[in-house]
Amino acid sequence: MTNRQFSKKQDARQDDIAQLPPTAWAVLGLLSFPGERTGYELKKWADSSLRFFYWSPAISQIYAELRRLEDLGYVTSSRSGPEEVRAKRRYTLSPRGREALTEWADTGGTGPSVLKHPLVLRVWLGHLSDPARLRARVTEHITCTEGELAGVREALARAEGVTQWAHPQVALRWAERQHLAELELARAMLADLAELHPPGTEGQLPPDAPTDG
Amino acid sequence: MTNRQFSKKQDARQDDIAQLPPTAWAVLGLLSFPGERTGYELKKWADSSLRFFYWSPAISQIYAELRRLEDLGYVTSSRSGPEEVRAKRRYTLSPRGREALTEWADTGGTGPSVLKHPLVLRVWLGHLSDPARLRARVTEHITCTEGELAGVREALARAEGVTQWAHPQVALRWAERQHLAELELARAMLADLAELHPPGTEGQLPPDAPTDG
Repeated sequence: MTNRQFSKKQDARQDDIAQLPPTAWAVLGLLSFPGERTGYELKKWADSSLRFFYWSPAISQIYAELRRLEDLGYVTSSRSGPEEVRAKRRYTLSPRGREALTEWADTGGTGPSVLKHPLVLRVWLGHLSDPARLRARVTEHITCTEGELAGVREALARAEGVTQWAHPQVALRWAERQHLAELELARAMLADLAELHPPGTEGQLPPDAPTDG
Repeated sequence: MTNRQFSKKQDARQDDIAQLPPTAWAVLGLLSFPGERTGYELKKWADSSLRFFYWSPAISQIYAELRRLEDLGYVTSSRSGPEEVRAKRRYTLSPRGREALTEWADTGGTGPSVLKHPLVLRVWLGHLSDPARLRARVTEHITCTEGELAGVREALARAEGVTQWAHPQVALRWAERQHLAELELARAMLADLAELHPPGTEGQLPPDAPTDG
């Protein structure tokens, strides 16, 4: 291969890498662990781990990405034989897909993290809310986060002790600590809100509350 | 007003509330604090406070929402007079807008928070990365978060002592603790990564590293 051909090939790959959305990389990432998997299995896996620190795509999004990645030659698929009651298509990362994914994982920019916390937005607008109802929202968030934390710990228990999952373990330990921090943050905010409007003073509307009419 | 007319008016308002995107509510929310403001001032304000726990919309998005909200009668605007070198349009929340916003703030569902952390995604895919480069990404994130924390503290200093900003203060204190937690989480992840690949062993590629060809 001449240097020029090589450089063209490099450019084309750089274009692919620049154009693929994060969902595509996450689907490729799921397939970078050993084993071949169906779209449904990828969705279940994303639901039980990726979603704790990134997100979980809709199943339709996963199938759309798998088709695109197969067109690019980044994944290959095969249909199960007649011995299965319902035929399934299973996907594997191709050597070309692994090369592109490695380049993305190792050299691409990380990009900023996204945090959209509608509960904190409501607290920011707390002058428009009934203080007791606002505190109840924070308490609900605590209950919900406790449930999520249990999910993170289940995922961590599944990854524990599997050498090939050493990095997912690190990511899930981050997620465990992040959920514990989220609980502490919510409890501290609850205390701040209680100081602002001590429970028992709920009937008193803020001075700028709207009047009917 | 008959009961039927009242109920129709209620339904129409519920439709408005259901259809408006979060950006619209955030723009209304900014206008719920005392004073009239230009689109540019709203953008600057969002950049220096809202973005620490929710997001900051593009200036074009803010202008589009202001037009929509004016059509709905939720905000009113006036152009500055000839005494200003460049005429400016300033927006104020209308009583109807305050009513709708209060209903949304006090009764709507909070919705789940969104966290997309591309750094943790990279760590999850750490088997594809050079260990030293991966740790460098985490270190960069720490530096970047320290910068953000300084921004949160500036916003908090501006809000301090202003009674009308008591709730924004609570939200910003949450953001301050959240950034401190983010720093701790990153440092703990760095320690986990160093344990997995002690610094000095960088030359050794993981067993499943791709080969050329």
